[in-house]
Amino acid sequence: MEEKEISQAVIGRLPRYFRYLGELKDVGVERISSQELSELMKVTASQIRQDFNNFGGFGQQGYGYNVEYLYKEIGKILGLDQTHNFVIIGAGNLGRALGNYMNFERRGFIFRGMFDQNPALVGQDVRGVKVRPMEELEQFVRENDIDIAVLTIPKTSAVEVADKLVHNGIKAIWNFAHVDLNVPEGIQVENVHLSDSLMKLSYNINRYMKENS
Amino acid sequence: MEEKEISQAVIGRLPRYFRYLGELKDVGVERISSQELSELMKVTASQIRQDFNNFGGFGQQGYGYNVEYLYKEIGKILGLDQTHNFVIIGAGNLGRALGNYMNFERRGFIFRGMFDQNPALVGQDVRGVKVRPMEELEQFVRENDIDIAVLTIPKTSAVEVADKLVHNGIKAIWNFAHVDLNVPEGIQVENVHLSDSLMKLSYNINRYMKENS
Repeated sequence: MEEKEISQAVIGRLPRYFRYLGELKDVGVERISSQELSELMKVTASQIRQDFNNFGGFGQQGYGYNVEYLYKEIGKILGLDQTHNFVIIGAGNLGRALGNYMNFERRGFIFRGMFDQNPALVGQDVRGVKVRPMEELEQFVRENDIDIAVLTIPKTSAVEVADKLVHNGIKAIWNFAHVDLNVPEGIQVENVHLSDSLMKLSYNINRYMKENS
Repeated sequence: MEEKEISQAVIGRLPRYFRYLGELKDVGVERISSQELSELMKVTASQIRQDFNNFGGFGQQGYGYNVEYLYKEIGKILGLDQTHNFVIIGAGNLGRALGNYMNFERRGFIFRGMFDQNPALVGQDVRGVKVRPMEELEQFVRENDIDIAVLTIPKTSAVEVADKLVHNGIKAIWNFAHVDLNVPEGIQVENVHLSDSLMKLSYNINRYMKENS
């Protein structure tokens, strides 16, 4: 399938389609129209058709989509038929939460290593993976075919660690540190800025209260 | 200041402005032009001006923006001059990570209670807050002026718990469960779907590898 420049907004919606289709598949639904999917997901049917047309449309619209086929195809587009080794840097609560999350493995993300600069955490076990000292990070990334690094460390050290990762061949950073990373082109970064998300919630609470007071 | 319908895309960018302005303020920068802010944040100066014009513009453009004033005003718009009590539901690693994050307090989010259905976790202490049994949730929310509930529980129980929260007067849900919640109008929901974020990263890795192989 030919993939041209697809907007990040479309890409951002694919995982949600994938999630809904997985649930439909799990409960035995075989076919679904864009209209039904639209009602379920609370987006317009035309949005769904537009999004899918970026990837060739996925089959006849009058007849509806084949759920299993669509689920598989979107999974392939998302690269979930590939496996990617990842390490987590930062063995605090957030790092552990991510390390313990089994579903990542189901999607092809394999948890290989965990690193922390705190000697008290080194040697601890998170789902079969031992926490290693930061000094071992660079060699480990080079020698274990690590594609993705998950950063759950403070912003003060995140920039320096990201540089080291890039120099040792990492392909992508899933960044939970509260800082925007500057990386060379070709290194993928996905930010999860939790404070930003909470502030957006705060805005919406206050706006609603003002409008209804 | 008059606030009309502002798009969620604009709102979504406000926390990032707030973060950068806070850092500029902390290092003593007093004034900044939209051009300088543009280079720092890697967005266009015209985007910045457009975003700010939604809120009246924040002062003369030729002269640049007053950093401290702008920081405060955006903070007010985000509702960070108000305080909001919150509870965390789910005392696993993710719940603990959020409970231990002190910065939320600095932004006016006060950690009041934590709940879990696992008796082994009940009674444990997370930064001075005792984990309580789920049976106490509804009364606690009603009696302690709780505005925000943070859901770090599996999707199977998230829907039911969200319903209970809504019935007991919660104003907003910060949802980490892998499910979209259906709540009445006026209840604010901000989703953090970590799997979706990782899949987006996966897509970008694979696209880049295909284009450059």
